[in-house]
Amino acid sequence: MTQTEIAIKMVLDRWYGSILNLNKQLSDLNDDQLQKEIVPGKNRGIYILGHLIAVHDDMLILLGIGEKLFPQLNEPFIKQADKVATQIPSATELRIMWAKQNEVLKDKFDKITTAEWFTKHTAVSEEDFLKEPHRNKLNIIITRTSHLQYHTGQLVLLKN
Amino acid sequence: MTQTEIAIKMVLDRWYGSILNLNKQLSDLNDDQLQKEIVPGKNRGIYILGHLIAVHDDMLILLGIGEKLFPQLNEPFIKQADKVATQIPSATELRIMWAKQNEVLKDKFDKITTAEWFTKHTAVSEEDFLKEPHRNKLNIIITRTSHLQYHTGQLVLLKN
Repeated sequence: MTQTEIAIKMVLDRWYGSILNLNKQLSDLNDDQLQKEIVPGKNRGIYILGHLIAVHDDMLILLGIGEKLFPQLNEPFIKQADKVATQIPSATELRIMWAKQNEVLKDKFDKITTAEWFTKHTAVSEEDFLKEPHRNKLNIIITRTSHLQYHTGQLVLLKN
Repeated sequence: MTQTEIAIKMVLDRWYGSILNLNKQLSDLNDDQLQKEIVPGKNRGIYILGHLIAVHDDMLILLGIGEKLFPQLNEPFIKQADKVATQIPSATELRIMWAKQNEVLKDKFDKITTAEWFTKHTAVSEEDFLKEPHRNKLNIIITRTSHLQYHTGQLVLLKN
């Protein structure tokens, strides 16, 4: 294994480990618990779950590996704050979307080659990428893992 | 820049970005707020801060770059749960330790070479490392960044 391959493995291991960690939290919470606010006046569990799916859906675009699976989540879970949208999917529906999305992402990540991980993501121009080669596809995984961990730390607080 | 150097930069950027993010949260919270439990019955802000310092102190050992700065934090903030220890440092003291530690860690990280980041950390044997080359020093930064983000997501909930 080259150092580059080791680096990719470490980043993806942390991503998949973080997904497994959230799966564990979700399986410990029932749908009623997900309806609760983490702290009075703050986001509900269901909003955090929808927000994560919406943010991860955008990774398909940023990595240039497909279209969003659930574009309808962008408005209620990214553009809008919690409790603004009048109609959002149920916790059960979001759980199904989350599981489906993780299958699709794994499938697509598996097909990205070592060299491709270090090519630019779609939100940076060719010109900027020449000066900032760290704005590559692998970095999208690094930043989204951070984001996922941040919200996992919140969801876990719903447990009694 | 080689791919290896880019990978190291991405990982360290995410670490320092996460430290800055926590600094921002800490500056928005006063010492009284840090004394509160994030959610009734769960950890207090002060415990999370002490826990992060204790965990980051252990990175000095894992990376083989020095002795712990605050070994006295291991017992109350790692071995014991919150509200078990009868005497812990004040929020003011912990803020000073946190700032000092971040200076020291940056100083020491700056001296680690590209090749060294891919050498084994001190908690893995030479034998295991041959089979699992991802158990290297850089991976310690990756996993601790995850951990830091997880708890940052909790601390932010103390803000009104």
